[in-house]
Amino acid sequence: MSEGETESNKPDAVLEAFGFKIELVNGECVSGRFVVTERCCQPFKVLHGGVSALVSEGLASMGAHIASGFQRIAGIELNINHLRAAALGDHVYAQATPIVVGKRVQVWEVKLWKIPESIFSSKIDSSSLPDKSVMAVSRVTFLSGMQVPKSASGATDAIKRLAKL
Amino acid sequence: MSEGETESNKPDAVLEAFGFKIELVNGECVSGRFVVTERCCQPFKVLHGGVSALVSEGLASMGAHIASGFQRIAGIELNINHLRAAALGDHVYAQATPIVVGKRVQVWEVKLWKIPESIFSSKIDSSSLPDKSVMAVSRVTFLSGMQVPKSASGATDAIKRLAKL
Amino acid sequence: MSEGETESNKPDAVLEAFGFKIELVNGECVSGRFVVTERCCQPFKVLHGGVSALVSEGLASMGAHIASGFQRIAGIELNINHLRAAALGDHVYAQATPIVVGKRVQVWEVKLWKIPESIFSSKIDSSSLPDKSVMAVSRVTFLSGMQVPKSASGATDAIKRLAKL
Amino acid sequence: MSEGETESNKPDAVLEAFGFKIELVNGECVSGRFVVTERCCQPFKVLHGGVSALVSEGLASMGAHIASGFQRIAGIELNINHLRAAALGDHVYAQATPIVVGKRVQVWEVKLWKIPESIFSSKIDSSSLPDKSVMAVSRVTFLSGMQVPKSASGATDAIKRLAKL
Repeated sequence: MSEGETESNKPDAVLEAFGFKIELVNGECVSGRFVVTERCCQPFKVLHGGVSALVSEGLASMGAHIASGFQRIAGIELNINHLRAAALGDHVYAQATPIVVGKRVQVWEVKLWKIPESIFSSKIDSSSLPDKSVMAVSRVTFLSGMQVPKSASGATDAIKRLAKL
Repeated sequence: MSEGETESNKPDAVLEAFGFKIELVNGECVSGRFVVTERCCQPFKVLHGGVSALVSEGLASMGAHIASGFQRIAGIELNINHLRAAALGDHVYAQATPIVVGKRVQVWEVKLWKIPESIFSSKIDSSSLPDKSVMAVSRVTFLSGMQVPKSASGATDAIKRLAKL
Repeated sequence: MSEGETESNKPDAVLEAFGFKIELVNGECVSGRFVVTERCCQPFKVLHGGVSALVSEGLASMGAHIASGFQRIAGIELNINHLRAAALGDHVYAQATPIVVGKRVQVWEVKLWKIPESIFSSKIDSSSLPDKSVMAVSRVTFLSGMQVPKSASGATDAIKRLAKL
Repeated sequence: MSEGETESNKPDAVLEAFGFKIELVNGECVSGRFVVTERCCQPFKVLHGGVSALVSEGLASMGAHIASGFQRIAGIELNINHLRAAALGDHVYAQATPIVVGKRVQVWEVKLWKIPESIFSSKIDSSSLPDKSVMAVSRVTFLSGMQVPKSASGATDAIKRLAKL
């Protein structure tokens, strides 16, 4: 954690609670990965669908904030289809990409894939992942173009550090 | 925690991570409440939209499992509109109710309201909460009517205990 | 049709193609009804789900335009759950009401009910319709607060006539 | 129209009302195109968002019926983001492809692109259309694996003819 950064203005704090590791953060792509541990599961030992939704909203929000030129953005709608289950111990890769980046509205698509453990520590090119491994697909709609309150400028600094800008 | 119950088969373990307390669990209504703490927030100190989505999927899933007669259910789609922001320290009440409970498909509606701290410890009748306090509204679609694997019967026992059935 | 009104700037022209009759149009409620004829059906003689979506977007759009003070609005997202089928010859009542009317964003809810033929010509109070008769439920999200181009002022005049303002 | 086919069991009758022409129909892809005429528009002379939703549900339904092996399928959820407007006179290409084809559930993605008039009569490869021309993107969820009632076998015959099977 850099100087002046607190736990709460870490852009990915909510996702870290589930063991999620962000790896790439910019205005064209935000990605990361995690292992399905017990704290990500519903009682049937399967990844909780709400965690997939949380990951989707989290990744897309970071990307939309950057793509807006670090203005304030607000998620207004999220829809997600859960396509396949992931079990306790499975490895998951997630990636958000913009569908449209307008001045007033942004829409991002997020996909989660189940990946083999053998590639969990490797660089992943999502275009090489088989369609059959997509676990969930979502779109997140943002209102964009609003001013960041001065009191919140620390949050923008934190995301700039994460994005290495 | 009752005998034989583990952390991971607690039906509400994922929600508890955010300080969410379940209060009512049955096949016609599942409700609970929480305070917006730092671990629920995105970097701008506002409730993370993904947490609202997670709460929605979590409450609706418990209700759908009970309404199915404790069969296996699978969330297949969630959509949520974030209507108003909740800030750090705000109090939130959430309630899931069924829209349709069919043999193959169930659809539940979930709403989250921002409530005054003065009623946070009281019994709440959602019909008395003002429309202007609704923060988010969602629908969750489930596939129903599937058999619970024997290995997962502990999960059903745990939700029965929570529902006091 | 009033003087100066053309087929194309009738606010409900797309809906009329399916025999839909608008009855109430204002910024708090837009409603109407129709009979499921062959031109509304998919090949299995059941109401085409796309027609329910079209009715939802159509009613909500009229309401959002009025609620915005006759500014330009743009539908950015629609989600709909089809809960029950309506067959050829069934009678349907539809109603749109606002969930939130903000300066930048509006969200409307639309419901479609299957109603008995005996009440098809009567005034309907949606709160008296049984939950079991809801066929579809949707939400439509609008961007609001944009200027109507001068060239399109005829469209606003036409909706004002329909709303009897 | 082939012998024994009536207006109402034409698989694409609802879409034809808007001048939509189906061109490819199989279980991996359903596509077609149309010109934005006055009867497709809302009063501001822009393609009615409900028409995009109708096209999405219509194309995906045909594909899902075929992909199920001509079982009965039922659309249970549709969500659509309207990304860019299409004006009166614009040319539109639409394509539905499956995201997942399961025994119980299918999810299809549908996209609509604004295309130059110069290619409106040509064969189109959607992968060559620029991302900036996507007007709308949607997902449609179907319940699958239900028996077609004997009374409706004509509808399946009609779609087989359209699919040239």
